[in-house]
Amino acid sequence: MAGIDLNSDLGESFGAWKMGDDAAMLDVVSSANVACGFHAGDPAGILKTLRAAAERGVAIGAHVGYRDLAGFGRRNMDPSSEELVGDVIYQIGALQGLAKAAGTRVTYVKPHGALYNTISIDARQAADVIAAIRAIDPSLVLLALAGSPLIEQARAAGLTVVAEAFADRAYTPEGNLVSRREKGSVLHDSELVAARMVRMVKEGVVEAIDGTPTKIDAQSICVHGDSPGAVAIAKRLRELLEQAGLSVQPFAPTT
Amino acid sequence: MAGIDLNSDLGESFGAWKMGDDAAMLDVVSSANVACGFHAGDPAGILKTLRAAAERGVAIGAHVGYRDLAGFGRRNMDPSSEELVGDVIYQIGALQGLAKAAGTRVTYVKPHGALYNTISIDARQAADVIAAIRAIDPSLVLLALAGSPLIEQARAAGLTVVAEAFADRAYTPEGNLVSRREKGSVLHDSELVAARMVRMVKEGVVEAIDGTPTKIDAQSICVHGDSPGAVAIAKRLRELLEQAGLSVQPFAPTT
Amino acid sequence: MAGIDLNSDLGESFGAWKMGDDAAMLDVVSSANVACGFHAGDPAGILKTLRAAAERGVAIGAHVGYRDLAGFGRRNMDPSSEELVGDVIYQIGALQGLAKAAGTRVTYVKPHGALYNTISIDARQAADVIAAIRAIDPSLVLLALAGSPLIEQARAAGLTVVAEAFADRAYTPEGNLVSRREKGSVLHDSELVAARMVRMVKEGVVEAIDGTPTKIDAQSICVHGDSPGAVAIAKRLRELLEQAGLSVQPFAPTT
Amino acid sequence: MAGIDLNSDLGESFGAWKMGDDAAMLDVVSSANVACGFHAGDPAGILKTLRAAAERGVAIGAHVGYRDLAGFGRRNMDPSSEELVGDVIYQIGALQGLAKAAGTRVTYVKPHGALYNTISIDARQAADVIAAIRAIDPSLVLLALAGSPLIEQARAAGLTVVAEAFADRAYTPEGNLVSRREKGSVLHDSELVAARMVRMVKEGVVEAIDGTPTKIDAQSICVHGDSPGAVAIAKRLRELLEQAGLSVQPFAPTT
Repeated sequence: MAGIDLNSDLGESFGAWKMGDDAAMLDVVSSANVACGFHAGDPAGILKTLRAAAERGVAIGAHVGYRDLAGFGRRNMDPSSEELVGDVIYQIGALQGLAKAAGTRVTYVKPHGALYNTISIDARQAADVIAAIRAIDPSLVLLALAGSPLIEQARAAGLTVVAEAFADRAYTPEGNLVSRREKGSVLHDSELVAARMVRMVKEGVVEAIDGTPTKIDAQSICVHGDSPGAVAIAKRLRELLEQAGLSVQPFAPTT
Repeated sequence: MAGIDLNSDLGESFGAWKMGDDAAMLDVVSSANVACGFHAGDPAGILKTLRAAAERGVAIGAHVGYRDLAGFGRRNMDPSSEELVGDVIYQIGALQGLAKAAGTRVTYVKPHGALYNTISIDARQAADVIAAIRAIDPSLVLLALAGSPLIEQARAAGLTVVAEAFADRAYTPEGNLVSRREKGSVLHDSELVAARMVRMVKEGVVEAIDGTPTKIDAQSICVHGDSPGAVAIAKRLRELLEQAGLSVQPFAPTT
Repeated sequence: MAGIDLNSDLGESFGAWKMGDDAAMLDVVSSANVACGFHAGDPAGILKTLRAAAERGVAIGAHVGYRDLAGFGRRNMDPSSEELVGDVIYQIGALQGLAKAAGTRVTYVKPHGALYNTISIDARQAADVIAAIRAIDPSLVLLALAGSPLIEQARAAGLTVVAEAFADRAYTPEGNLVSRREKGSVLHDSELVAARMVRMVKEGVVEAIDGTPTKIDAQSICVHGDSPGAVAIAKRLRELLEQAGLSVQPFAPTT
Repeated sequence: MAGIDLNSDLGESFGAWKMGDDAAMLDVVSSANVACGFHAGDPAGILKTLRAAAERGVAIGAHVGYRDLAGFGRRNMDPSSEELVGDVIYQIGALQGLAKAAGTRVTYVKPHGALYNTISIDARQAADVIAAIRAIDPSLVLLALAGSPLIEQARAAGLTVVAEAFADRAYTPEGNLVSRREKGSVLHDSELVAARMVRMVKEGVVEAIDGTPTKIDAQSICVHGDSPGAVAIAKRLRELLEQAGLSVQPFAPTT
């Protein structure tokens, strides 16, 4: 049976502020991108999420971001290479420590927010993130945007890379994400979302916003869980993937 | 030849703010208590300190503190057990990651500032720190205040504990540190400091502030490096220890 | 018609993290304790809350707290007097600036969380908060716990003080709050809560947890709004106060 | 006697970390750009600097920056307009509060670091800073880079703007600063620095890096104080300006 991974951003509560329903999402996804404290996540809350992930055999990725709690890591920044390398190693190490305490381990890295977007196209910051991963553990898989130049750059540097698609996002005919500012960029119909993803896994094709069939080569699908509606969409996606004969399973080891 | 460890707090710069002369101190000490980002230390700066320590074969300890950058970890706080356990694991993990990138590893833990003082006498917070260490790596040695109840508590919980004395501090006849608020609590004469420490290593005795010979059982001596004068005192202490036939060497592995 | 003030903690969202329904609560209360960024609140979000308060003629208080975002200002800390005075002035000033931009102004101060609890009984930290208020604007009213020694201390220092009761909390026969750790310390029946507060306003008496009628002298009632249930309780309290012929109105000027 | 202002960045210590010698610089400059806590500065330290400035009759400017303590406000960021407006109002308000407590007041605003550079050329972020200043106090003077488009934009929006030159920086023939990455961009000869500034004040001309006489229209000169050498250069500049018959005086009121 063919397989596909479902990943989601988790561990994003901070102190008194709660975000998302991690337990519910961990019943749906096969891989958890867990916040590392720089854009979101406090150690006690992260630990709780890691324990819940460990119980369910969900793979753990370090969801590293810029040091920007007030902006939730969504604002562009230009740290020096020295700073960015250090910040990424620090975050991965912190999550590794918490994962060990939770009886699991970090097996992949998915950059978050503005850092994710930036390294998809900015070779300098991409090189810093790659260098950081290689410095702490070269066996960590990098989860990257399908179609981005980052994929080749990271592979050339010796990393294993897995590409991801976004379940609820429209694509351009060139295979890029339609900007969130554009009309129609985000899809809300869970049946449509699921049908698109089934086709992508089986045929490697997604229909672009203008109707053009577009090649998307992805081994993981990112789903959101930051609202009850989002959790429902994710659940329905998993059901339909499984009904289509696809097995939801992590791309990286879970222990 | 009998040995003794010299330890110092390092890696305490933060961004544009410099503190201490880590390179100079790393030529003097055998163990480096390296800040982990909560009370001081940014990842890029910590990494630099770790690389310098690795080059010199200095042992690395995680200098974990309260999450209080503005107060430099010197203000009492009462985190919940869940928070404190998480915060300590997070900091140790982050430093382990940076240490790996620097070609070395963390082999001990020394709590910092208010956390150090609190766990010397507060069994609840002490239990949290002990639990955190055991959760991430039970082989990590705990460096604790000589004479404090923490030592027995940590040993009973299965940790290896090393006790430390403070080179430049006066002691009460009961073997406690004289409060910094008292006159005569801090010693500034490097010859006197060195003579006291030589005696402590050889005889297990320090002369208390009232002249009473007092037993201090310590395998490590803490020296400060936050001023040029402090570095000079530390250097002189090392010279005099060596002249007295004592070898300065770490209590924990360096690689 | 006799009057009573209703106050609530608002402006406590931070960046991507939302907390409470400020618009709903501003329709209920007469005074808004607005977070100042140290325990909660980011400037853009605070500004939004201040504008909504200004539209409704709600009085603005500076809800100053310890510098502890991760702990939401709920953890005890021991800042020096210099630090605490500076931190309180800074927070009040920041809120004054935002209030000016929102077309309103700060007319009172209510310390938050652990700082609130501490200064109710700790004369040193109380003196620091009083000194800070006097240094920035001695006409600011201090909103303090009914029955606490802080009230006399602040009045002796020249401040105007208003005492508050907690709508949903049980009291001891001595007029103190029953600790949240005790059974029965928090009341959930909105009719009971309202009846108690009507009696308190009219007779100056609340029935203690053991049934003893206890004197509580308060000119303001604190209500919570951090859950939909809490908002409903607050609304019902206001209705019943008004049905009992009591006018809900701020103790401090609103412009 | 013709006059010129000397301004410097002050109040940039943070907690245990000291930066600069504010007392020494306050004897040299007529205007103090005081950190507001986002890129540097803690309230207690800022208050100390403000008191020292008040004693000497030095004018106070709010040195507002991005919320980036780890990067000292030197890293580019792209906050939303809502965020930037809020952050700037918050910082100015906080400094106004501390200034009031110190017996002085804020009379101008000088953005710091990356924000300073960005708004010199980025009209959107410039508009946000201008809107923030207008919202809290439209009488605040904006201190801006001589020759930058910001000057016209701010004046068109109704602000009073004063232009500044950098004492120790080389200029291009077009009147822009030579990038710090270029050779010769920073001048170290205090006699040369002073002679250039005297000419600029008297003739409105500075010799560019290629020798071309270039018009620079500035009413204030920025000097650095972050090293003993920098303080000495600033002192010498003041002496030579005064010997040339120029009076060092603030462009904005001091009380």
